[in-house]
Amino acid sequence: METFFSFLEKRVDDCSSLLCVGLDPHIPDLKESSAASALDFCLNLVKQTAPYAAAFKPNAAFFEVFGADGWTVLKQVIDAIHEESNRLGLKIPIILDAKRGDIVSTAEAYAKSAFENLGADCITLSPYLGKDSIEPFIQNQEKGIFLLCKTSNPGSGDLQDLILESGDPLHVHVAKLAQQWNTKNNIGLVVGATHVDAMKRVREAAPDLWFLVPGVGTQGGDLESAMRVGLRQDGHGMLINVSRGISRSDHPRKAAVELRDQIVNIQLQMKK
Amino acid sequence: METFFSFLEKRVDDCSSLLCVGLDPHIPDLKESSAASALDFCLNLVKQTAPYAAAFKPNAAFFEVFGADGWTVLKQVIDAIHEESNRLGLKIPIILDAKRGDIVSTAEAYAKSAFENLGADCITLSPYLGKDSIEPFIQNQEKGIFLLCKTSNPGSGDLQDLILESGDPLHVHVAKLAQQWNTKNNIGLVVGATHVDAMKRVREAAPDLWFLVPGVGTQGGDLESAMRVGLRQDGHGMLINVSRGISRSDHPRKAAVELRDQIVNIQLQMKK
Repeated sequence: METFFSFLEKRVDDCSSLLCVGLDPHIPDLKESSAASALDFCLNLVKQTAPYAAAFKPNAAFFEVFGADGWTVLKQVIDAIHEESNRLGLKIPIILDAKRGDIVSTAEAYAKSAFENLGADCITLSPYLGKDSIEPFIQNQEKGIFLLCKTSNPGSGDLQDLILESGDPLHVHVAKLAQQWNTKNNIGLVVGATHVDAMKRVREAAPDLWFLVPGVGTQGGDLESAMRVGLRQDGHGMLINVSRGISRSDHPRKAAVELRDQIVNIQLQMKK
Repeated sequence: METFFSFLEKRVDDCSSLLCVGLDPHIPDLKESSAASALDFCLNLVKQTAPYAAAFKPNAAFFEVFGADGWTVLKQVIDAIHEESNRLGLKIPIILDAKRGDIVSTAEAYAKSAFENLGADCITLSPYLGKDSIEPFIQNQEKGIFLLCKTSNPGSGDLQDLILESGDPLHVHVAKLAQQWNTKNNIGLVVGATHVDAMKRVREAAPDLWFLVPGVGTQGGDLESAMRVGLRQDGHGMLINVSRGISRSDHPRKAAVELRDQIVNIQLQMKK
């Protein structure tokens, strides 16, 4: 039976890519600050990078900031990815980066919004509210989640690095919980490339899980160091997200191809 | 200089109420599942309860679930609260219950959306990403945040009750951080009425902070037990949120008045 991660693995095999293209229509990047220019920005990125993208990751905040028009655009962007997928005869997973996390009755509304209404395949969630808060998102095994574990920002240590009485840092405990909760093969973890030591620990604690990896490029994470500690034994298990590194390039298509190739080369070197 | 909590304190004094009216247009509560019926539902609640509400708390999920139309309605509801406030010659704080939490560049977009575009005065946030992730929301001291500390749901213990090597449960550590970060008097904590022992510990760790307290009513929290351990020494410091307990009542106005009075009575008994 298909699960979110079997769907992702298929796409990864088809395009030989672990690259996730982030769709973040930052206001400074737009010709004019409007929902319409956010739409153009995203459609252009989708068109240029679809053949090399293992997944697309629109960030809800950069649509939400345009209010109702932004939500219309977010839906249009997701529809456009589906269309572009069909045109190319492939199916590209869409991860809504929303980092939601709320009690069950509210989580049900967020899940309906992301999966049924917008048509995303996966969503990023905060683990702070515990297992029951993620249930509405994982009931359908074809839909997946990436749970925040060790994020890429400097302040991530404030909570995530706290040492528990068991001796584990909090992020390792979250990794162990996710590994244990992943009975339907639809839970992954967000682990930033900016913290290689933490990624190593998380991989040990969750040997089977997929990581969504932000922090390469603008945020300063080193791709090779991260892949050396983060890849699973099967050479998969990391979805490397790049947003500004592609969208701010003069040639987004070229930037995506280069990143895809760089990732493949590191994979090959590691196999030797 | 006015801060978010001096604004809230003024409103609390003016209306002798610690009641926060939750605006959660749950689909099962609506005559028909549409943004339009969500608008009617909220406008009716605002009109009936404004004189007794220390604050209103719209929950983003129940608007987001209607897509672009839902965001239009959320803005209309917030505008309606401002209008009703002006009509009654008072100013009622609006807390957007969104539980966001992301890296700085993304957090800036969420802050702009909540405060500048929607016109909310305060937002709920997750602490999982640390101090830098909340900075964009607290720079302007007239805008405030309630940081998730100990939530009302059964699964809250999965992370929030973990014991750190210092001996503190995680929720107590979050309370201490928030107390320390609150240099501009615009940070409060979300502490569920369903966990009275935890609330007692949180009050000890954060003697000065305001709590936003969900969990009374439908979720089973006992109002008096919570207030006995959660009120500050000045008899303030708790904003008791009730959503379904008011909106599902046959007479929302009556339910709000009764709750307001119940809260005042407990405050008076405690002063004795």
